Amino acid sequence: MTVTHGDMANTIRALSMDAVQAANSGHPGMPMGMADVATVLFTKHLKYDPKWPEWPNRDRFVLSAGHGSMLLYSLLYLTGYENPTLEEIKNFRQLHSPCAGHPEYIELAGVEMTTGPLGQGLATAVGMALAERLSNARCGDVIDHHTYVLAGDGCLMEGISHEAVSMAGHLGLNKLIVLWDDNSISIDGNTDITTSDDQVARFQAHNWHTIAIDGHNPDEISAAIEEAQQADKPTLIACRTTIGYGAPNKQGTAATHGAPLGDEEVAAARDFLGWPYAPFEVPDEIMSAWRDAGTRSQQAASDWKTAWDGLDSDIRADFERRLNKELPAGLTDAINAYKKQLAAEPKKVATRKASEMALGVINPIMRETIGGSADLTGSNNTKTADMTPVTRDDFSGRYMYYGVREFGMAAAMNGLALHGEYMPYGGTFLVFTDYCRPAIRLSALMKQRVVYVMTHDSIGLGEDGPTHQPIEHVASLRAMPNVAVYRPADVVETAECWLAALEDKERPSVLVLSRQNLEQVRLTHTDDNLAAKGGYVLRDADGKATATLMATGSEVELALKAREELQAAGIPTRVVSLPSWERFDEQDDAYKAEVLGTTAVNVAIEAGSTQGWERYVGRDGIVIGIDRFGASAPAGELFNYFGLTVDNIVNAVKSKV
Amino acid sequence: MTVTHGDMANTIRALSMDAVQAANSGHPGMPMGMADVATVLFTKHLKYDPKWPEWPNRDRFVLSAGHGSMLLYSLLYLTGYENPTLEEIKNFRQLHSPCAGHPEYIELAGVEMTTGPLGQGLATAVGMALAERLSNARCGDVIDHHTYVLAGDGCLMEGISHEAVSMAGHLGLNKLIVLWDDNSISIDGNTDITTSDDQVARFQAHNWHTIAIDGHNPDEISAAIEEAQQADKPTLIACRTTIGYGAPNKQGTAATHGAPLGDEEVAAARDFLGWPYAPFEVPDEIMSAWRDAGTRSQQAASDWKTAWDGLDSDIRADFERRLNKELPAGLTDAINAYKKQLAAEPKKVATRKASEMALGVINPIMRETIGGSADLTGSNNTKTADMTPVTRDDFSGRYMYYGVREFGMAAAMNGLALHGEYMPYGGTFLVFTDYCRPAIRLSALMKQRVVYVMTHDSIGLGEDGPTHQPIEHVASLRAMPNVAVYRPADVVETAECWLAALEDKERPSVLVLSRQNLEQVRLTHTDDNLAAKGGYVLRDADGKATATLMATGSEVELALKAREELQAAGIPTRVVSLPSWERFDEQDDAYKAEVLGTTAVNVAIEAGSTQGWERYVGRDGIVIGIDRFGASAPAGELFNYFGLTVDNIVNAVKSKV
Repeated sequence: MTVTHGDMANTIRALSMDAVQAANSGHPGMPMGMADVATVLFTKHLKYDPKWPEWPNRDRFVLSAGHGSMLLYSLLYLTGYENPTLEEIKNFRQLHSPCAGHPEYIELAGVEMTTGPLGQGLATAVGMALAERLSNARCGDVIDHHTYVLAGDGCLMEGISHEAVSMAGHLGLNKLIVLWDDNSISIDGNTDITTSDDQVARFQAHNWHTIAIDGHNPDEISAAIEEAQQADKPTLIACRTTIGYGAPNKQGTAATHGAPLGDEEVAAARDFLGWPYAPFEVPDEIMSAWRDAGTRSQQAASDWKTAWDGLDSDIRADFERRLNKELPAGLTDAINAYKKQLAAEPKKVATRKASEMALGVINPIMRETIGGSADLTGSNNTKTADMTPVTRDDFSGRYMYYGVREFGMAAAMNGLALHGEYMPYGGTFLVFTDYCRPAIRLSALMKQRVVYVMTHDSIGLGEDGPTHQPIEHVASLRAMPNVAVYRPADVVETAECWLAALEDKERPSVLVLSRQNLEQVRLTHTDDNLAAKGGYVLRDADGKATATLMATGSEVELALKAREELQAAGIPTRVVSLPSWERFDEQDDAYKAEVLGTTAVNVAIEAGSTQGWERYVGRDGIVIGIDRFGASAPAGELFNYFGLTVDNIVNAVKSKV
Repeated sequence: MTVTHGDMANTIRALSMDAVQAANSGHPGMPMGMADVATVLFTKHLKYDPKWPEWPNRDRFVLSAGHGSMLLYSLLYLTGYENPTLEEIKNFRQLHSPCAGHPEYIELAGVEMTTGPLGQGLATAVGMALAERLSNARCGDVIDHHTYVLAGDGCLMEGISHEAVSMAGHLGLNKLIVLWDDNSISIDGNTDITTSDDQVARFQAHNWHTIAIDGHNPDEISAAIEEAQQADKPTLIACRTTIGYGAPNKQGTAATHGAPLGDEEVAAARDFLGWPYAPFEVPDEIMSAWRDAGTRSQQAASDWKTAWDGLDSDIRADFERRLNKELPAGLTDAINAYKKQLAAEPKKVATRKASEMALGVINPIMRETIGGSADLTGSNNTKTADMTPVTRDDFSGRYMYYGVREFGMAAAMNGLALHGEYMPYGGTFLVFTDYCRPAIRLSALMKQRVVYVMTHDSIGLGEDGPTHQPIEHVASLRAMPNVAVYRPADVVETAECWLAALEDKERPSVLVLSRQNLEQVRLTHTDDNLAAKGGYVLRDADGKATATLMATGSEVELALKAREELQAAGIPTRVVSLPSWERFDEQDDAYKAEVLGTTAVNVAIEAGSTQGWERYVGRDGIVIGIDRFGASAPAGELFNYFGLTVDNIVNAVKSKV
C-alpha cells in the first residue's frame, strides 16, 4: 500500500468524527474541513519534535479555532507525542482525559495554548511571534522559527482579531502565518447572513501578505506555505474549504459544525472517503507514515541542541533560568535594600509611581521583563529609563507601545509568557480591565505569569468621571480563579507586591494602583514580605482592642487616621492592611485568625464594591465602600462625596461600641 | 461684524481650552482639532432642535472620542440647549456640573450616549442607525434620519471598531456617517509608533463608502457630508486635522491631547486665532450666529410634528408607549395565565428553553422586542417562531443574527435601546459576558433597559470544558452597579424574571440560564412575581427550622432534595430561592429578615464563585460553590466532581447541627 496525502488527511477525519461520535458531543466540521491543510503543514513544513515538545526553537502551532480540538489531538497522537494516547482520544471530552472539549495548555504538551474563546488564539500567537523576534534579536538565529495559526471565520469576526492583525502588520511579524479556514459557515448558518467582509483586502489594509488557495489541494497548500515563509510581512493564507468534508450529506453546512454527525452519516462518510476501517483503527502503513512525519525535524532539533550547547554557558544558563521562571540572583536582596532605604527616607507617592520605582530596581536585574502600555505609558508609569521601544526595525528593545488595544496587549502578553523566556507586564486604567478580561482569564487558566499594571484604581482618578472610575473591578477580578489581585497601600507594599507577583510562577497578578499620592504607612523595615501574606496587622491597638479596621490601598491611610481618633476617644483600635485576598486566604488558619482578630467591631474600608468583605467582617460587620457609579470632580471632593472619610469610619465604629 | 465660519469654529476652540484650563484637567486637543468639522456639521447639516432635544426623528450625533467632551458641551451651549449653561461650562469636571469629564447621557439632553470607553460610541451608533432603519421599515419616512459619529484614532484601534464596522457594512446602514479625526496623535505620541493601518482601505474592505478630506477646510467638509448623505453604504469621512489646532507651540503633538495648554499657550492661541475675547466670553454677533444655526431645523421639526400628528392615533400611541418604556396592555396578564398553566402542567426544561417559552408569550404582545444572538441562536433559544431576520434588504424583521460579535451585539443593543422605541435582547454563553462586559457597563451607566440572555450558566454546560464554563461571571456581574442579575430556578421563575426585567425601565438585566433541564420547583400558582422580590421562601420547614438552604438556578433543585433528606433525618429545613441579589437587597428589612430567617445553620449553594454569599449566610455560614476552573465532562459527572451534590449539602448541615 502506498500511503497518499489523502489517506493521511482521512486519518484525521476519521479519528475526529469517531471521537465526537463516541463522546456524543463535539465539533467534527472543522477537523474534517481542515484535515488537508493540517496534514500538509505537519508532514511537510512544521518544525517540531514530538519527543522533545519543549524544544525552544520549535515552530509554534496555535489552533485558534479551538472547537476543532480533535484536529490537534489527532495530529499529536499520529505524529508520536507521548499524549494523547488512543485511549485518551477514545475518552475525548470525558472526565480525566486530557482531550478536553477545547485544547487545554495545561493538559498536553504540543498544545501551545488554551483556545476556544474565539480570536484569542490569533492574538496570543502575535505575542509568540513577537517573542521569537525578541529572542532572535538577543540570541541570534538560534531562535528563528515560525508561528502558525489556524483561524476560523469566528476568529476573524471577533474584535480582538482587529487588534491582533493591526499589531502584527505594524510590527512586520513576517514569521507569523495565518491559515484561515474559509468555509463560509458558522453556527447560525452561512456567514453571508452576518458578514460581507473581504478578508483578503482587510488584511492587506493592515500590511499583510495574502494568498488565496483551494484548501483541499495539497500542492496549493504546500506552495502557499512556502511563499508565506519567504514573505517580508505576516501572511494570511485564505484556504477555501468545505466544512465537514467527507460527510456526504452534511458537508458544507452548519450541521457539521458543532454536533456529532450521527451513526448513519459517519458510515456514509466512511464510504465517501474510502475509509473501511473500524472506529479509531489506523492501518499500520498509514500510522507509520504519520510517525515518520513526526520524526522529520528530529535531526534539526538535534543539530539545534548542538548549536545551543556551543553558546556561551552564561547565556544558556540565563535562558534556562528564564524558562524555569526563576528570579535572577540578587533581585530579592535588591528589593530588600530598596525597602530599607524607604524606611529610612519615606516617600509619599502614588502607587503607580511606586510601581515605576520598584520596576527601577527590578528591570536592570531581571532582563526578561517586557514592559508596555495600551497607550497610557505616562499614566501607567510602566516605562523605566533603561527601556527602549520595540519597533519593526529593532527588536532589541524591551518596551511595547501597544496602542489603544487593551485586549490585544493582554493576549500578546500571554503569548510572550507562553513562549517561555519573558516576563511581560503591561498597563492600562483599572476600569479597562473590562476590555481585556477574556485574556486575563486565559492567563489564569493557562497558569501564566503575566503582570497587569492597572492604575487609576478608584474614584481617586477624579475628573475623568464615572466612565473611567472603577467600582466593581477589584471585586470582579477577585472572583476570577487563579488570579492574584494586589492593592498596595504605599510605596513599600507596592515593592512587596511586585516581588510577590514575580515569584508566582503559575499565576497572573493584577496590581491595582492609585493615581493619587499616598502616605508611606510602612515605616519600619523588615525583610519579611508582609504584602505577600495577603494581610497583616499594620498597627496594633494600644490597649485591648475593641475595633478592627481592615482596608486596602488608598484607604489604609484613612484607617490609620481613624485609628488615631478612636484611640484618642478611648476606643483601642487595630488596623489590618489586606492588599491581597487570594494570598491571605492561602495562609494557615492560625495566621488568619490572628490577623482578623476577635474584636467586637469590624469595619472594612475600600473605595469600591463592598461585595465579599463580609467574609472578613461578618454579617454584622460594617463595610464602607461604593456600590454605585462615580462622578466627575477632583479626587478629594469625591472621597468626601462618597463617604470615604475618617469621620465616617470613626462614626461607624462608635455606632457599634 | 460679519461672522465667519472661522469665528464660529474658534468659539469652540476658545471655550474648550478655557474650560480645560479652568478645571486644570481635560482634553483640549480634539475639540480644537475638530472644531471646523463640528461647526460645519452643526451649522449646515445636522437636523436637530435644541428646544426639542427628544424629537424622535432628529439626527443622532455621537461623540465616540468622548474625551473631547468640551466640543459637545460647547455645541450644546452655543446652539441653544437649555443645558449646559455657561456657568455649568465654567464648572467643567466639577462636582454637580452636568459637564462631566466625559459626556454622560444621564446628565444632558443632546448627549445621545455616554462615551469615553473608546470605540463604543461607534459601535453603539451602529445600533442607533439600525433602529432608524427598523422604524423606517415600520412607520415609513416619518423616521428617516442620519446618525453621525465623531471617532478618533483610538476608536479605530479598539477591537470593537472591527465588529461595528463589519456589521454596519454588512447591513448597508447607509445613513451612518463616521467623521474620523485623522490627526495621527494618541497619548503615547504619533500613531506611527503603534499602527500602520490604511483606514480607508480597511473600511472599503468592509463595504463602506470612503472620502478623505482636509478637516480644516469648511467647503471640503460640507461637500463630503453631502456626498455621504447620498451614498448607498455607510460612509467614512477621513478628516485630516491638526490636533490642538490654534495652539501655536503645541498643536500637532500629544501635548495637547489630555492636559491643559497652560496659561501661556492659551494666550498664544488667542493671538494665533485672532480671538481677543476674555475666557468664556462669546461676542454677541457670534453667539447670535450660533443660536441662529440652532434654529435651522425648527421648521423641519415642526413640520415633522404635523406629519406625525396626522398618523394613525394607534400607531402614535404605541410609539409613545414604547418611548416611555411602558409594557403593552395584556402582557402581565398573559404571563400570569402562562404561569398558571405551568402550575397545572409542570414542565422540566432547561431555563434557556424556559426563556424561549416566556418569549413565546412576550414577543407576540410586545412588538418592540428585537431579539438576537452572537451566533448561538439555537443554543441561546433567542429566536421565537414569529421572528424573521433583519437583513440589509428587509428591515421589517425582528431578529438579528449578530455574528460572532458579542461586544458588537451588546453595543448595538445599547444603541437600539437609546434610540427609544425598542427593547433589545441578545444572547451568548454566560462565559462570554467577558467579551461584552464594557458594553454591559455602559447599559448600566446609561440606565438602559437591555436584556442579556446568557445561557450555559455553569459547569452544567458540560463537555465544552473550562474555557466555556462560567465560574466567576455571576459574582462579577453582581458586583457591577445598576445591573439586575437573575438566575432563575425553573420555568416559572424564568417567566417571572423576564417580566421583572421588562418592567425595569432604568436598568439592564442579565438572565443567567441553564443548558440542562431543571425540575419545575414552583408548583402552586400565584400572580405574585416572587422572583421579582429577589428572594423568597420556596419551602418552609416542617417543624421549627434548624437549617436554611439558600440557592439559585440549578442548585435550587438540589436544595429541595437535600431538604427532604434532612427532614427525614429529623432536621427541619427551609429552602430559600434567591434568583436576584440586587432585587432582594432592595426589599425592606422586615421582608429580608423574614426570608433569611434565624436558623442556626445557613448554607448557600451555587455552582460558581462563592464570593459574596457571606452577606446572607454570615461568616460562620457554609457556602458550597466552585472557586476554581471547571473541567470537560458530561454535566452530571461534573456536579459530582465539584461537590455540588445533595449528599454534600446534607453533610454540611449535619456537620453544624
